[in-house]
Amino acid sequence: MLTVNALAAPSATEPLVRATVERRDVGPRDVLIEISYAGICHSDIHTVRGDWGPVPYPLTVGHEIVGHVTEVGAEVTKHAVGDRVGVGCMVNSCRDCANCRAGQEQYCVAGNTGTYASVDRDGTVTQGGYSTHVVVDQDFVLRVPASIAHEAAAPLLCAGITTYSPLAHWKAGPGKKVAVVGMGGLGHMAVKIAAAMGAEVTVLSQTLSKKDDGLAFGATDYYATSDPATFETLANSFDLIINTVSALVDINAYLSLLRLDGTLVSVGAPPEPLPVQVFSLFGARRSFAGSSIGGIAETQEMLDFCAERGIAPEVEIISADRVNEAYERVLKSDVRYRFVIDVDTLR
Amino acid sequence: MLTVNALAAPSATEPLVRATVERRDVGPRDVLIEISYAGICHSDIHTVRGDWGPVPYPLTVGHEIVGHVTEVGAEVTKHAVGDRVGVGCMVNSCRDCANCRAGQEQYCVAGNTGTYASVDRDGTVTQGGYSTHVVVDQDFVLRVPASIAHEAAAPLLCAGITTYSPLAHWKAGPGKKVAVVGMGGLGHMAVKIAAAMGAEVTVLSQTLSKKDDGLAFGATDYYATSDPATFETLANSFDLIINTVSALVDINAYLSLLRLDGTLVSVGAPPEPLPVQVFSLFGARRSFAGSSIGGIAETQEMLDFCAERGIAPEVEIISADRVNEAYERVLKSDVRYRFVIDVDTLR
Repeated sequence: MLTVNALAAPSATEPLVRATVERRDVGPRDVLIEISYAGICHSDIHTVRGDWGPVPYPLTVGHEIVGHVTEVGAEVTKHAVGDRVGVGCMVNSCRDCANCRAGQEQYCVAGNTGTYASVDRDGTVTQGGYSTHVVVDQDFVLRVPASIAHEAAAPLLCAGITTYSPLAHWKAGPGKKVAVVGMGGLGHMAVKIAAAMGAEVTVLSQTLSKKDDGLAFGATDYYATSDPATFETLANSFDLIINTVSALVDINAYLSLLRLDGTLVSVGAPPEPLPVQVFSLFGARRSFAGSSIGGIAETQEMLDFCAERGIAPEVEIISADRVNEAYERVLKSDVRYRFVIDVDTLR
Repeated sequence: MLTVNALAAPSATEPLVRATVERRDVGPRDVLIEISYAGICHSDIHTVRGDWGPVPYPLTVGHEIVGHVTEVGAEVTKHAVGDRVGVGCMVNSCRDCANCRAGQEQYCVAGNTGTYASVDRDGTVTQGGYSTHVVVDQDFVLRVPASIAHEAAAPLLCAGITTYSPLAHWKAGPGKKVAVVGMGGLGHMAVKIAAAMGAEVTVLSQTLSKKDDGLAFGATDYYATSDPATFETLANSFDLIINTVSALVDINAYLSLLRLDGTLVSVGAPPEPLPVQVFSLFGARRSFAGSSIGGIAETQEMLDFCAERGIAPEVEIISADRVNEAYERVLKSDVRYRFVIDVDTLR
């Protein structure tokens, strides 16, 4: 057992504090990773504050993790000491259900093992990446290509794959009109990836305050959703809408922007249900779908795609002591576009 | 102008009464049809009772129409006097938008012209098929194959195409598991058509009272949704669910029955929104879609498919004087499975 430094939430209402977490001994198929950077995802905040249900406190969150391998188990073949690697939102799955066998471990019928707040196969509660080290089964560890800047790579492991996966599944590419709702951590990655795939990208954001950035990231159009005219102008326009907003939105208004056979995919999840008018779907055989991160093979594909296309998240690096301040700024959408904790400040 | 016998709703709260409606003179591209049978669709009842919004009373409904051509305009090439023909839920569209040009007139961006209660291109309000005659543009008139029994053909024009279209679009066929929610007019057609397409069909109905019929129509399984165990047993089971129920259902419970990448398609529409938990979609990249009737070419394809496979609706033929009684029975789900008005009783 390793006891390592971490940031932990003592309860739903207290700030994160310095603490320690225990990591299991490196098993035959495990990899010990010395973490360099950990991204701050909105899900981390939802989780520690209990927005998505009961939480086993104290809890260390963080599922956008990059670092280096410092030890491997006897049977490990996929990674070696010194490799630059990443860990995303899950660290295990049943590996036996139809979805796992299809390489869609994120949809494991038994439930995948989340990187934090999940019950691991050994009965312990998983603890996330706001921490100096983590031990992970080799099959859930990704290779991070050298051409991606080390400090920028972490957000790819959640924000990157969460947007890449639906864009790839619903075939964003040349000739397709894609809208991205929200210009936060996920949204800005969706814009970059969809544009790199060759789609024509429109950003739908509350205001035009990030318009210059959106166009620089590859969007061709940028509209304010606070302006009702936006919904008239863009009616029946898009093949695919990626909704990255995890707050309640007027879902029927967004559905009306889809053209025939278009799909709106939510990758953010409000705790409340969204009231869908079936007539909104009827009008053009529209679909409302959900997508959750991506499979392990697809996550590797995404990392390789981003390396090849020179795509990386925009990050603001912070020390561990600034995490609570960063949380407040995320909640106010005051970040361009992802906070990343420099984990050296936790050692 | 022709004045013809009909049944009409004087208001939202009064029973249908015998009345007359006016049909336009047969134009160069029009077909005059002497109606033989008109099906009773749940939509007719929703419409006349104002459930779906304001209605231009008095109104004659009915959009499952079969009859014979008795006159054609000078430029008509598709139909001839004596032909057995049908008319479904729409009688015109803009013909110029992308959807019309793609043969998806039902999704006309300008709005298709409904067979009743729509404003026609000449500014009059369309009147439906509970009537002895109707005048329709040749392009919206279907050929009814001789091998389909005359009195059974009418429901194909709405119940048939409304279920055929999503089954075809989402590729029901060998190797696909399809569930049909509801065993009414639409549901029983969905079972017959999906089974004929080669899919493995399960019926999800409130009770098991129609189980023998469901199995006879081609289903291999039949479950009662009033039994909570049904939702446990069938979790993650289906590629496609056709929801034919136009009342509020627990949509998240049904979504949980979809396997990876499955789609639940609603073809019935409650007036109230359905509260969709995004987490229900997330779990297996599920989609919630809507589908509205079908295009004209696809409706012809459906009629030809049903003729070839020997598929026809189960009907109970009634005289015009029993229409109000039939409405009450439809509302109580007391019909196996579609009432059809013998329009000779209106002459």
